[in-house]
Amino acid sequence: MASQEQQQPEKAPAAAPNLDEELNPDGTPLSDNQKKKRAAKLEKERKKAETAARVAAEKAQREASEQDFASQNYGELPLNQSQERTGRKFTDIGEISAALDGKDVLFTARIQQSRSPSAKLVFLTLRKRFDCVQCVLAQAPEKVSKQMVKWANGIDAETIVQVEGTVSKVDKPIESSTVTVKDAEVKISKIHVVSGLKLDEPIPFYVDDAVRSDAEIQASQSTDRPMAFIGIDTRLDNRVLDLRTATNQAIFRIQHGVCKLFREFLDDRGFVEIHTPKLQAAATESGASVFKVSYFKGDAFLAQSPQLPKQMAISADFGKVYEIGPVFRAEDSNTPRHMTEFTGLDLEMAFDEHYHEVLDVLSGLFTFIFQQLPKRYSKEIEVIRKQFPVEDFLVPDQMPRLEFPEAVKMLREAGQEIGDYDDLSTEQERVLGKAVRDKYKSDFFMLDRFPLAIRPFYTMPDPKDDKYSLSYDFFFRGQEILSGAQRVHDPKLLEARMAEANIPVSAMKPYVDAFRLGCPPHAGAGIGLERVVMFYLGLGNIRRASMFPRDPKRLEP
Amino acid sequence: MASQEQQQPEKAPAAAPNLDEELNPDGTPLSDNQKKKRAAKLEKERKKAETAARVAAEKAQREASEQDFASQNYGELPLNQSQERTGRKFTDIGEISAALDGKDVLFTARIQQSRSPSAKLVFLTLRKRFDCVQCVLAQAPEKVSKQMVKWANGIDAETIVQVEGTVSKVDKPIESSTVTVKDAEVKISKIHVVSGLKLDEPIPFYVDDAVRSDAEIQASQSTDRPMAFIGIDTRLDNRVLDLRTATNQAIFRIQHGVCKLFREFLDDRGFVEIHTPKLQAAATESGASVFKVSYFKGDAFLAQSPQLPKQMAISADFGKVYEIGPVFRAEDSNTPRHMTEFTGLDLEMAFDEHYHEVLDVLSGLFTFIFQQLPKRYSKEIEVIRKQFPVEDFLVPDQMPRLEFPEAVKMLREAGQEIGDYDDLSTEQERVLGKAVRDKYKSDFFMLDRFPLAIRPFYTMPDPKDDKYSLSYDFFFRGQEILSGAQRVHDPKLLEARMAEANIPVSAMKPYVDAFRLGCPPHAGAGIGLERVVMFYLGLGNIRRASMFPRDPKRLEP
Repeated sequence: MASQEQQQPEKAPAAAPNLDEELNPDGTPLSDNQKKKRAAKLEKERKKAETAARVAAEKAQREASEQDFASQNYGELPLNQSQERTGRKFTDIGEISAALDGKDVLFTARIQQSRSPSAKLVFLTLRKRFDCVQCVLAQAPEKVSKQMVKWANGIDAETIVQVEGTVSKVDKPIESSTVTVKDAEVKISKIHVVSGLKLDEPIPFYVDDAVRSDAEIQASQSTDRPMAFIGIDTRLDNRVLDLRTATNQAIFRIQHGVCKLFREFLDDRGFVEIHTPKLQAAATESGASVFKVSYFKGDAFLAQSPQLPKQMAISADFGKVYEIGPVFRAEDSNTPRHMTEFTGLDLEMAFDEHYHEVLDVLSGLFTFIFQQLPKRYSKEIEVIRKQFPVEDFLVPDQMPRLEFPEAVKMLREAGQEIGDYDDLSTEQERVLGKAVRDKYKSDFFMLDRFPLAIRPFYTMPDPKDDKYSLSYDFFFRGQEILSGAQRVHDPKLLEARMAEANIPVSAMKPYVDAFRLGCPPHAGAGIGLERVVMFYLGLGNIRRASMFPRDPKRLEP
Repeated sequence: MASQEQQQPEKAPAAAPNLDEELNPDGTPLSDNQKKKRAAKLEKERKKAETAARVAAEKAQREASEQDFASQNYGELPLNQSQERTGRKFTDIGEISAALDGKDVLFTARIQQSRSPSAKLVFLTLRKRFDCVQCVLAQAPEKVSKQMVKWANGIDAETIVQVEGTVSKVDKPIESSTVTVKDAEVKISKIHVVSGLKLDEPIPFYVDDAVRSDAEIQASQSTDRPMAFIGIDTRLDNRVLDLRTATNQAIFRIQHGVCKLFREFLDDRGFVEIHTPKLQAAATESGASVFKVSYFKGDAFLAQSPQLPKQMAISADFGKVYEIGPVFRAEDSNTPRHMTEFTGLDLEMAFDEHYHEVLDVLSGLFTFIFQQLPKRYSKEIEVIRKQFPVEDFLVPDQMPRLEFPEAVKMLREAGQEIGDYDDLSTEQERVLGKAVRDKYKSDFFMLDRFPLAIRPFYTMPDPKDDKYSLSYDFFFRGQEILSGAQRVHDPKLLEARMAEANIPVSAMKPYVDAFRLGCPPHAGAGIGLERVVMFYLGLGNIRRASMFPRDPKRLEP
């Protein structure tokens, strides 16, 4: 049966509102207000359709309980409490292909869509992580009853089912954009609910709808099948549902990949992974606000970074250390680039002669990460780009290194006003990124020797000109992803720098004391994991790169 | 020159108090009070000796500045501000061996000990991480002046020096217990200070003294060279210094190793690493107290574990997830087993049929970790066992699994009083560990099917007997290192369990809602990293397995 042809054109889930009945807009894109109205209307219709579907399902169930030769082949399984372990082989949807033609398979998956062109037939698309397979349940004597088809057609999207069936090769590749198994479908013989939806209200949105790109949604508004727009707040309020999209399944595998590559590169070079305390006695380090914690009869503060303990680990002779862990910022910034808690990738390294030994490691590290990601995660990147299209960029073998005065010159040539010792604005970072791209043919560069005044107190002054410092940022598509420096390892100079910054030494005694015990010259860097993922994938909002993001207004889920 | 012979018998650092003048104890071990008095006395004498050494060093420096043909070959380097990058090759001390006989080397290291048998000669032991090499500086015409030898003899222990010299094979292995390069020494031609000590007070203790085992110190008390006892508080107050011991360098490499092996095993099996928020809206999960955080105009709470978000990741279809990150416990427990912040190794996994699928992964994981550690970290383990001797133990290929009633029976046979549904006391855990060892010849086992009443509300009841549950602990040398269970994935049952535990559903709405959206059956576990390291290495106090430990009384360093 060439069922994949019947699958087209794609339709919304059975329980979804019938978009075909909607009026066409006049050809111009919908305004936000129109979108809201439309969404409200769709919502109402969907609720209605869902109620109808539920009634139908209950009816089907009733009918099914009357005399049904197939009653063993479908229905709800008892709550899994590990009643038995048969050892039967469960197949991953991703493994299903034409190569298994004729083979019986057993698997669990979620209902993504269902569609029933007749009372004797139901098509189900079943999803697991970012794989999706088309399944067919057709009435058949002694095997599949009419009641069974009706029941299957009434299952809610997002229900987890356990399916037995036979793999069947298809003649033409299945064209549905969500189905990933293109050359085969599964003919269902048994289908049971493992875990159903227990919602008091309609599902907030369909995973199928949550995976469209903005461009796709925009374009659809002038057609007779306008797609629903799902805003970031709706997504984050229902993050568990949102995370089920293929895009999000892939984003967090990339996030894992960045950490894995980070560690792989550093482990190979003798770095030691450390875990430093997030509870600190003093609120210090930099101007950024810190969160205060009630600590028994006193107070503690959440670490803004592992800056102090990682440097103490260097004075403790660990030589090269890194940490991946949460960092906390009590800044009331409500922007697409800020969160109150994120994951820091931090490293610190003693060097022999010159901090550029550390810069070499850092540029090697990021070149490695960005060269390996597309090699090892090509499937994930492809999945994400469907929703978030972004240009490929060339990662050069040798990352360009600019000194700050050179950057100022390039910015002025590009028409920007900037003082010799001013920090770059976000806009200037972007302009500089473009200028570097034009000049060096690279989307990636390091900016070295920042003005001392705009860097933290623990930054080593440049010995040739103490208006500058031995500090650097890395930029990626004109946006900062890394910040670092050679640190002051001499306690006298450190005290002098703290005095200039109005930080009392008493507040950071254990830190300063670490250098009184003799400390090798060292440099390091801090990188925001979510920022790397966001910029690399072009996600536009850092919250998309955080599984359960935290900002001044969001502490849940 | 057979300088290694002159090295014996070992002496304390030049600047240390002369222990030879001490009186012998009467042969019985010293009481704590006697130890304290003795330590105070040693301390006083050491301060005196240090002052004398400093005066001598200053004198040497003055003399050196007068007419000295070797003045270029020693002295203090300017503060390293990355003035130049010559690219000269720096050798790691660990690479020095007889194979380099006659070769010139350049390296940086810390002074561990110095000893001058005559005005023309000084022996230095130089340390980097857990490697230590013996060096000789001998007066020589036109190369090494008398002033240079004097100056070198006055350098403080823990000073970082840069050394140039020639590797020289020795005839007999160097017997010093701290020197790790046994078959060669370095004849120094140049020596400069990279970073000196800038202490206002004498150094709190010597790294050399901080590396002895309790048995060694105990035994020395009845000899004419009693060793100083350095208590854990003194160590933790001066943690940067304490961490420089070979033992601590090795402990934190083992800690890294546990994390690395944990990830390696799980990555190979398709797990996704996640990072979940430590800032939570509600104080919940279990009876354990949580820390309250001031969060803008409201409050937040520090996560006691990633339990809730990791389960939400399962409902979000990630299938298999793990996290390594800090967890916080606001319990006022001042014991050798408790900290207020530690590193959790957490994992959670959806299964097809039975939670024993997850138990299989967990037992495979820990068998892998404990089989690989001695293979990959034999050097580190050897170093640690010198200070913390502990028996090897056999890790069986198949970890024994006991059910709770069986454990109760074994405990009763061993004379313990325990009710059918009681939790095990620390003592009973130890007794059970011994009984299992005798019966199954294993130091490692899992205890399955704990009584439901003593497990958290999210634990799945046993379908055959709801006085029990589908939960388990792993024991290692009779001490619990892991706790886990199949979780309740049905929202109705979860609500019922929460009601029994008097936890309002409203406090954990996003968590319960995650299961209303359909969730696969799943199980998981949480493990304390420091606990694993502590028990594996027999460290006796969990603080020794934490770089900068936190407890109710300690927030610094």
